Amino acid sequence: MDLRLSTPGAARAVALGLLVAATPTLPVGALDALPSWREGPAKRAILSYVERVSRPGSPDYVPAAERIATFDNDGTLWPENPLPFQMFYALDTLRERVKQEPALREDPMVQAALGGDLARLLEGPRHEGLLRVLALTHAGMTTEEFRTSVQRWLATARHPRYGRPYDQLAYQPMLELLRHLRAKGFSTFIVSGGGADFMRVWSERVYGIPPEQVVGSTALTRFELRQGQPVLVKSSDHLFVDDKAGKPVGIHAFIGRRPIAAFGNSDGDLQMLQFTTMANPRPSFGLLVHHTDPRREYAYDAHPTSSGKLVEALRQAPERGWVVVDMAKDWAVLFPQP
Amino acid sequence: MDLRLSTPGAARAVALGLLVAATPTLPVGALDALPSWREGPAKRAILSYVERVSRPGSPDYVPAAERIATFDNDGTLWPENPLPFQMFYALDTLRERVKQEPALREDPMVQAALGGDLARLLEGPRHEGLLRVLALTHAGMTTEEFRTSVQRWLATARHPRYGRPYDQLAYQPMLELLRHLRAKGFSTFIVSGGGADFMRVWSERVYGIPPEQVVGSTALTRFELRQGQPVLVKSSDHLFVDDKAGKPVGIHAFIGRRPIAAFGNSDGDLQMLQFTTMANPRPSFGLLVHHTDPRREYAYDAHPTSSGKLVEALRQAPERGWVVVDMAKDWAVLFPQP
Repeated sequence: MDLRLSTPGAARAVALGLLVAATPTLPVGALDALPSWREGPAKRAILSYVERVSRPGSPDYVPAAERIATFDNDGTLWPENPLPFQMFYALDTLRERVKQEPALREDPMVQAALGGDLARLLEGPRHEGLLRVLALTHAGMTTEEFRTSVQRWLATARHPRYGRPYDQLAYQPMLELLRHLRAKGFSTFIVSGGGADFMRVWSERVYGIPPEQVVGSTALTRFELRQGQPVLVKSSDHLFVDDKAGKPVGIHAFIGRRPIAAFGNSDGDLQMLQFTTMANPRPSFGLLVHHTDPRREYAYDAHPTSSGKLVEALRQAPERGWVVVDMAKDWAVLFPQP
Repeated sequence: MDLRLSTPGAARAVALGLLVAATPTLPVGALDALPSWREGPAKRAILSYVERVSRPGSPDYVPAAERIATFDNDGTLWPENPLPFQMFYALDTLRERVKQEPALREDPMVQAALGGDLARLLEGPRHEGLLRVLALTHAGMTTEEFRTSVQRWLATARHPRYGRPYDQLAYQPMLELLRHLRAKGFSTFIVSGGGADFMRVWSERVYGIPPEQVVGSTALTRFELRQGQPVLVKSSDHLFVDDKAGKPVGIHAFIGRRPIAAFGNSDGDLQMLQFTTMANPRPSFGLLVHHTDPRREYAYDAHPTSSGKLVEALRQAPERGWVVVDMAKDWAVLFPQP
């Protein structure tokens, strides 16, 4: 079922009505921790699980040190369409770079990228074109130069559909969920196929997630002393891709504990959710954000041009007990007020 | 100068005397945060630095989120002689393994290991023999099987010189320092050439450092579902060695922030101390534990059979302002009471 509302105002009014209707179930004076979530099974499941594992004396109580929650980023904490935001960064940066070094135009992969032929970049089993574009835009500079470049891009670039800076497009309901989990003693980690260096520039400011709790794809840096200044030079070597079966691998390598809660939106998150919820001796929780909202955002499962696919994880959700969020129905608002 | 005391009792008496002598400089009622450290320049430098960066209103105040302290493990938090403890684990495990699979005795590297010919294992630029022994003892099992094996070893194995379980040999002065830093809002990380999987089994219990704050050498695991159970199988692939110039690289990859304080004991820590203290806009601190104590522990700098070498870092210490701890002189006790 897909509940469509004609205007955001109407959506808020309905949400408010549902909230009021739900008030008797809240203790007197209790604040709604998830005001942008409409009342329904997804919101109830989240609140009930968090309460069960965090309330001292609860039979399902989990010590705070083990309350690890992992979040996919693209498509789960912010949109991933029409392209993952980091890909916009790569294309914008490449465009600037070619102005300085016109010889780069000879590179067929640069041509494909600048011409918007993303299919060409993804050809081949190892996506050589994409790797070439990422090497041109994500390697060869120091980590500080890269950080400055991402900050400058965030300050000026705008999302093609929403016309807003990319870092103002985090999903408001997920920001509330992150805050609620931390208020209940959880540690919140990002576990994303995106680049760790890219996300760490803004993750603390946007999500309240510090750099040391960001797990992402990484390549090694190279340590150098330049005139008495220690620097780390980014490379494309020893690349670890933190996606699909790489997500539990990244969780083990970087966190070293099994999460008790995992949040994703695509088949790239399937193994993370399996690792978190299957045969876990702790009470566990899995959640998928289902993009069902073409009016306010996007709708895609197996859509061929979408950057995220949700087929196998959605199929397994009922038997595994994973909560599926219907974005159009469950989220009263999508983005923070500008 | 090397102050030798005839008995531990005398050492404690002198330490106590120095403590009493120093009392007037402590506020009335203040407890000594580092009781196992003798009064002297090293202890004064630590306490003064920690106070400067953590006291609100101090001109050198650093926000808590950036109070990152990184510690080498072997030789800094516990001994590394006559061999790093993880090497004892590998050799003990290999001995057991050969009983089950006698054919392994044909392997010349297994022969070298069991015969104590460690020089043979370290031959070649990539130390193939050592890698072979580590592959036999650290790969091919699930992470849970490995954890159980390390726990069982810790429960039964004894250090050849001290006759105590290895996990009771953390340096008492460093345990106090870790606690003091955390009490002052620091996050304490291990950054070690040792295996992350090995250290994470006991780091929280022994040092109060949780798995997610342990950076070490890592190889990738492989995710599998075995009869509905998600497991991670350890491999030797994609090995990252967190030592020497790899330490700042590991800090960047796993923590994503530059530390303000770093603690080491050998040339393997040189680049970590450089990265932490050189041209750091924050007030920073570097410290080297100098093994000067053959009576209670070991004495080595460039000793050819020692597993740790301290030559270049010791040479750079004065110009870089790194504190050098004289173990024999600065530490009143070495190990916790049994």
